[in-house]
Amino acid sequence: MENRAKKIVIITEKVIAEKVTRIIENAGGTGYTITAADGKGSRGVRTSDHLSNDSTSNVKIEAIVANTEQADRIANEVASKFFEDYSGIMYALDVEILRPQKFQKP
Amino acid sequence: MENRAKKIVIITEKVIAEKVTRIIENAGGTGYTITAADGKGSRGVRTSDHLSNDSTSNVKIEAIVANTEQADRIANEVASKFFEDYSGIMYALDVEILRPQKFQKP
Amino acid sequence: MENRAKKIVIITEKVIAEKVTRIIENAGGTGYTITAADGKGSRGVRTSDHLSNDSTSNVKIEAIVANTEQADRIANEVASKFFEDYSGIMYALDVEILRPQKFQKP
Repeated sequence: MENRAKKIVIITEKVIAEKVTRIIENAGGTGYTITAADGKGSRGVRTSDHLSNDSTSNVKIEAIVANTEQADRIANEVASKFFEDYSGIMYALDVEILRPQKFQKP
Repeated sequence: MENRAKKIVIITEKVIAEKVTRIIENAGGTGYTITAADGKGSRGVRTSDHLSNDSTSNVKIEAIVANTEQADRIANEVASKFFEDYSGIMYALDVEILRPQKFQKP
Repeated sequence: MENRAKKIVIITEKVIAEKVTRIIENAGGTGYTITAADGKGSRGVRTSDHLSNDSTSNVKIEAIVANTEQADRIANEVASKFFEDYSGIMYALDVEILRPQKFQKP
């Protein structure tokens, strides 16, 4: 039970990846992973108003956070800061941390 | 509750990636992500009959769909069309869309 | 019900990727995927004592296993063998195999 955590996944444009990961860190996320991700978004097109339609300009950012509240806090800040201007989708799912004693070790 | 969705994951050969994503779009999937994925499949070898055994020829395709029925429809079409000839594995999992008002915005 | 499985995710340093996947295979995992993953770990820094701090030296290894016991067995072996010397995080989550008859086919 105590090993339960949330994984938050943010798929968005590469140009804001660093700013998004800073939000995750400031919210107390203990780590994150960034993967290059081609794809197509929910708006029918994958491009934003201000950028090229380069098909490799998306990233998938994943972070493990403690609970739903932390996931929501990150999602709200990312959406309010960036999703007027950049496309993105965010979702969360339940995970079970394996060997959490290792995970929490300094 | 209304924010619940399914994530479908399809790991298969790169050569059919475009055809698979077309199936996702035709089934009403609102977006997808493609990641290059090295790996090894459930058949012991990762290669297909007709292709090289290039270790980087696999892709991981992820899409968010509304529910199990939509995930099954996609899986059935992908399997029946391609999995006689190409290797692949497909699974689904529950996700919670964060800030769905953004997700559904045009 | 019979289609339920566990996905185990291991994010660790690239240099031990091959040894980790061997553990997965020896434990009966039917396949795995490796993705290059930039990121930042739970220890504040992503680097290990013995390696460069190259920001692309991490990998995300995913495998589908039968159940929690198999996931734990893999996690215990990976952690005890490598996580004194290498950074890493491991978690598991529930997935539903789609079209399992295809998945199990030889």
